[in-house]
Amino acid sequence: MPLGQRVGDNSESRYCGVEIPFDEDIHTALAHNLAGGFDFVLAPLTDPQYRPSQNVPNTSTVPPFAGSDLVLSPAQWSSHVVGKISPWIDLDSSNEMMRADSEVTLKQELAWATHLSLQACLIPTPTPLSGGNYARSVNQSLQGLSNMQLWLRIPLVSPDLQEAEGTPNEDEVFLRRDLVTGRPLSDSWEWWNMFRTLCEHHSHLSVALDIMASLPSASAIRRWLGEPIKAAIVHTSAFLTNKKGYPCLSKRHQYLLSTLFDHSVQIVVSGDSLHHLDGMDLEPSIASNSNGYGEGLVSKHPLKLYLEYLSHLYRKLPPISDQERFEMGYRDFLQAPLQPLMENLEAQTYETFEKDTTKYIQYQKAVHAALLDRVSDTDASIKTIVLMVVGAGRGPLIRASLEAAKETGRKLRVYAVEKNPNAVVTLHSLVKLEGWQDTVTIISCDMRDWKAPERADILVSELLGSFGDNELSPECLDGAQRFLKDDGVSIPSEYTSFIAPITASKLHKDVKSYNDLAHFETAYVVKLHSVARLASPQPVFTFRHPKSKGDNKRFKKLIFEFPEDMGSALVHGFAGYFDSILYKDIHLGIEPSTATPNMFSWFAIFFPLRQPVYVPVGSVMEAHFWRCVGPTKVWYEWAVTAPSVSPIHNSNGRSYWVGL
Amino acid sequence: MPLGQRVGDNSESRYCGVEIPFDEDIHTALAHNLAGGFDFVLAPLTDPQYRPSQNVPNTSTVPPFAGSDLVLSPAQWSSHVVGKISPWIDLDSSNEMMRADSEVTLKQELAWATHLSLQACLIPTPTPLSGGNYARSVNQSLQGLSNMQLWLRIPLVSPDLQEAEGTPNEDEVFLRRDLVTGRPLSDSWEWWNMFRTLCEHHSHLSVALDIMASLPSASAIRRWLGEPIKAAIVHTSAFLTNKKGYPCLSKRHQYLLSTLFDHSVQIVVSGDSLHHLDGMDLEPSIASNSNGYGEGLVSKHPLKLYLEYLSHLYRKLPPISDQERFEMGYRDFLQAPLQPLMENLEAQTYETFEKDTTKYIQYQKAVHAALLDRVSDTDASIKTIVLMVVGAGRGPLIRASLEAAKETGRKLRVYAVEKNPNAVVTLHSLVKLEGWQDTVTIISCDMRDWKAPERADILVSELLGSFGDNELSPECLDGAQRFLKDDGVSIPSEYTSFIAPITASKLHKDVKSYNDLAHFETAYVVKLHSVARLASPQPVFTFRHPKSKGDNKRFKKLIFEFPEDMGSALVHGFAGYFDSILYKDIHLGIEPSTATPNMFSWFAIFFPLRQPVYVPVGSVMEAHFWRCVGPTKVWYEWAVTAPSVSPIHNSNGRSYWVGL
Repeated sequence: MPLGQRVGDNSESRYCGVEIPFDEDIHTALAHNLAGGFDFVLAPLTDPQYRPSQNVPNTSTVPPFAGSDLVLSPAQWSSHVVGKISPWIDLDSSNEMMRADSEVTLKQELAWATHLSLQACLIPTPTPLSGGNYARSVNQSLQGLSNMQLWLRIPLVSPDLQEAEGTPNEDEVFLRRDLVTGRPLSDSWEWWNMFRTLCEHHSHLSVALDIMASLPSASAIRRWLGEPIKAAIVHTSAFLTNKKGYPCLSKRHQYLLSTLFDHSVQIVVSGDSLHHLDGMDLEPSIASNSNGYGEGLVSKHPLKLYLEYLSHLYRKLPPISDQERFEMGYRDFLQAPLQPLMENLEAQTYETFEKDTTKYIQYQKAVHAALLDRVSDTDASIKTIVLMVVGAGRGPLIRASLEAAKETGRKLRVYAVEKNPNAVVTLHSLVKLEGWQDTVTIISCDMRDWKAPERADILVSELLGSFGDNELSPECLDGAQRFLKDDGVSIPSEYTSFIAPITASKLHKDVKSYNDLAHFETAYVVKLHSVARLASPQPVFTFRHPKSKGDNKRFKKLIFEFPEDMGSALVHGFAGYFDSILYKDIHLGIEPSTATPNMFSWFAIFFPLRQPVYVPVGSVMEAHFWRCVGPTKVWYEWAVTAPSVSPIHNSNGRSYWVGL
Repeated sequence: MPLGQRVGDNSESRYCGVEIPFDEDIHTALAHNLAGGFDFVLAPLTDPQYRPSQNVPNTSTVPPFAGSDLVLSPAQWSSHVVGKISPWIDLDSSNEMMRADSEVTLKQELAWATHLSLQACLIPTPTPLSGGNYARSVNQSLQGLSNMQLWLRIPLVSPDLQEAEGTPNEDEVFLRRDLVTGRPLSDSWEWWNMFRTLCEHHSHLSVALDIMASLPSASAIRRWLGEPIKAAIVHTSAFLTNKKGYPCLSKRHQYLLSTLFDHSVQIVVSGDSLHHLDGMDLEPSIASNSNGYGEGLVSKHPLKLYLEYLSHLYRKLPPISDQERFEMGYRDFLQAPLQPLMENLEAQTYETFEKDTTKYIQYQKAVHAALLDRVSDTDASIKTIVLMVVGAGRGPLIRASLEAAKETGRKLRVYAVEKNPNAVVTLHSLVKLEGWQDTVTIISCDMRDWKAPERADILVSELLGSFGDNELSPECLDGAQRFLKDDGVSIPSEYTSFIAPITASKLHKDVKSYNDLAHFETAYVVKLHSVARLASPQPVFTFRHPKSKGDNKRFKKLIFEFPEDMGSALVHGFAGYFDSILYKDIHLGIEPSTATPNMFSWFAIFFPLRQPVYVPVGSVMEAHFWRCVGPTKVWYEWAVTAPSVSPIHNSNGRSYWVGL
């Protein structure tokens, strides 16, 4: 039974599981837990006492290491059971027989789970940072998996840190490093990172986080959001007790769980019930009614109070807004950026962007302010301002400009320059419909070629891409500057791109799946969601219009520092944004700290790195971005030079460029 | 005129160049230097005063930035001129005009050099560790080069270390790091490494080392030997003065130069003459006769004393031995390892290996010792030892065994088991020819299948590959052990593989040129030459015969430490070797520290890494090797987990395996 219904939320986080011990009668065990309100069980597949080496040697008869597959239907196995690989296995043990037994057991159980068509198996936590042999064996199995996911169990806080929490040793434990290799030992993210790097970021390897009473810093949690977390195993020991004796979670735990819900992570409850309420077994509906978080469950499952609390948390999530629901379909989905000069937009694209009223309100404000600055009240009735919309599309900027003129009582003569002949058709019809014929002249021409009959006071354009200049606004406006008066203004007058390093395993996996170099050297438009923003965005390239001198090539070296308490992290690439100054204090942008609210015209841009870059705790990242301009195209190149050195991406624009 | 003639040496290190200043009349300058005994000049291509930005802006007339290409013939340009890109360029300058001028100049000069079909251009030293923009521009040019090499000029000792040498500051300077990124600043190898990593190890980018008076530690020099060094620019300031007033080099410099000669590095002399002898301009032949190192040059070139000294050093090199001459053709050349069980060797292969007399002398000694141990003098005439040669080939081990029997006066009954029916033909003929019919029985059979009529006292085999067990000696001898007496001995009785991390840019480049994953997950047999052995080899897998228990799977984790004074280095993969104990104290092997001398049957094995691993100064390398055994094949997997984590190579033997 899902935790609740949330309109628009189709993610798996609605489903809650429970970790159960080995049970020969899994049929009954499953029925009991489903009746108790859980959606699936995390269950061992074999008797924990079984050891392959106890078999008679040199015989080929393998005793039944598991029950029959017939005890559940195929649909039950795949929908309601996540396999749990025997936790006793230790492929990095110094005991040779233990290693051999472990490897046989791991392969046997994974083969059995595959036979049962399970969707996922939980594999045990590796020995901190020395799990090379374990990773090798899992990696071998991964090569053969077609559907099943492996969830590597990792404690969100390592046991030694949990133990040291609040003691004077805490800092020392946190900084503890392997004496030989210098690796941080107590940051469990490192265990995951080493394991998955050995397994080459295999798409079927994900992570299940154990959540106990102690939580790491917010930064340390945040870096996990770009990792492929499939499950969070919440232990009953993580719960506090409320005034009425019911289990509840700390504010920080609650915040973590709502974040996980938002990232499609499934919760699994684990451990014995630590909250026994008098009478709860007698009259369940009364007990659950009195806990304060909603409808009760009829079953007498020992963990039902925990489930109810989780259900309560889930149902407390804010409703999904229309914009979120619209964007949900685009989350973490790679889109090729536009080639606005080489290709014409389609009607549907115009339709979508024109709906972004916030954006045009900002433009209207900008034109408004510019008109007031250029024409005094006394001149309002005698002076006519020449305003040119360059790239008029189907007319939204004309409308915004005319509105601004009306608001201010200033007189306008508008030229609408548009290179797309299809949009021009619509423009003509709009002008006629609105009765703007006396004010607006439509020019069907590329602004870079147009021979204007007079020069403009104000040049209005909306040529910005997610990364500001990436749709060649600089080149277009340079071309239009010929017909701007010497004291004329451009709206926008300035724009700056921004960049920030992110963990984005999903995006990286998708880029990698193309299996070529070109896709790793391409920037993508993406609604970023399951990513970890590791450092604040920094400005990259700035363009100002009208331009006084210089070309449109740019070069920027950036140094990113990371929060001290974050620990280490993996950078899969960079999130790119822009901010623009339309006119004086009126800006428009998507850089997260200053983003214009309720705007949906732009998602972020994503620059991938061919090899993810490991950033050890305490180090900085140095990155280089270039904007290169050739006779027929503009492109970016990028590289990282600290903490390690990457190759330069997209040399000569060999993989990705925007045509002039 | 080459430095000298060395029989068998066809490398480019015979040719010596000279760095000259810009000369409008390059024709005369070249003639003068060739007459002076040099083979080529390292010469600027354009007037050092020229700056692109001094052109009249907005005109498309480019003034002649260089002389005509007609001043030299095409053959002269390409054979005798290495271009020197203007050293004033600085693409990482904070001055924008300087950056722009530098980029234009770099591209213009490289284009001009390409137009002249020069073989190489020397490009200036990058700003230590901040040459990102310079590297980007060079990398762009590299993408378009089809023939010309770019030599990045790097001082062997950074200027600040040269200055600090011998002062109390020396250590401090050596350890100096960038405050932000933590990179070591004074190790010039780091400058090269950052630059070439940004340029993605481009095959047309190599290094030219400046050699001055101070030299780094032997370890620091050694790591360069695996790098693509094309030239060493020896400055006149590097020379000392001998008792007679002539230039000479320190012992360490001499050793360095002979090493460079041996690695096909060309020498370029640079700088003003600092040794002026009275009368040397008057009567050159007398002057040069009296310097003590041989025939003089007739020209009056101001640097001729330096050239004569270098020629003297070159001619002092020890002559190339026959074995070296044989192996020279195989140096740094990747060979696919044998599939000895799946394929039969060819006659030529037998022929080559049989010539390795040293190897069979060791076998003869081993059989000799085993016979003395098994049969006392008193039993010598009555006891017959059953000796089985498993994998007899065309008979060399039969011969060695019979020789040992003759030496010791022991009686033998020999079974020669060979699976290759073609070799068996030759065996029969050999036995007849030598009259061994009463002693030797030939069995045409795979040793793993043979039903022996009796059991053996001694089992002799030569099944070892470069990495010991890599040609499946363990599996074969396990198969043969059925017919070895319980107290019987195997020759060899034990073997161990060894591994060491190496810099091997040439090998890595060759593997990369296949442009697929499989070649990066294959081990190759290679005569290693232009490689840097960064740490001592360590034992990996050991097998003993006869075997008491266990399987042939193996797993080893290795930790390599590097010399403290080496600095940082790049690891392209691992060199593999073996050592075997034939019998008691008689061993055979190629592990460098204990290698059997004068043996040529085995080259080393090379395990590549998909991405070269940067090892910062002071860190260790942790590597894992696995020997995996499946029903039909044996394979290795390998990975690095410190200082950084690599993916596991060759999972499931997907790329490289040896068939059973």
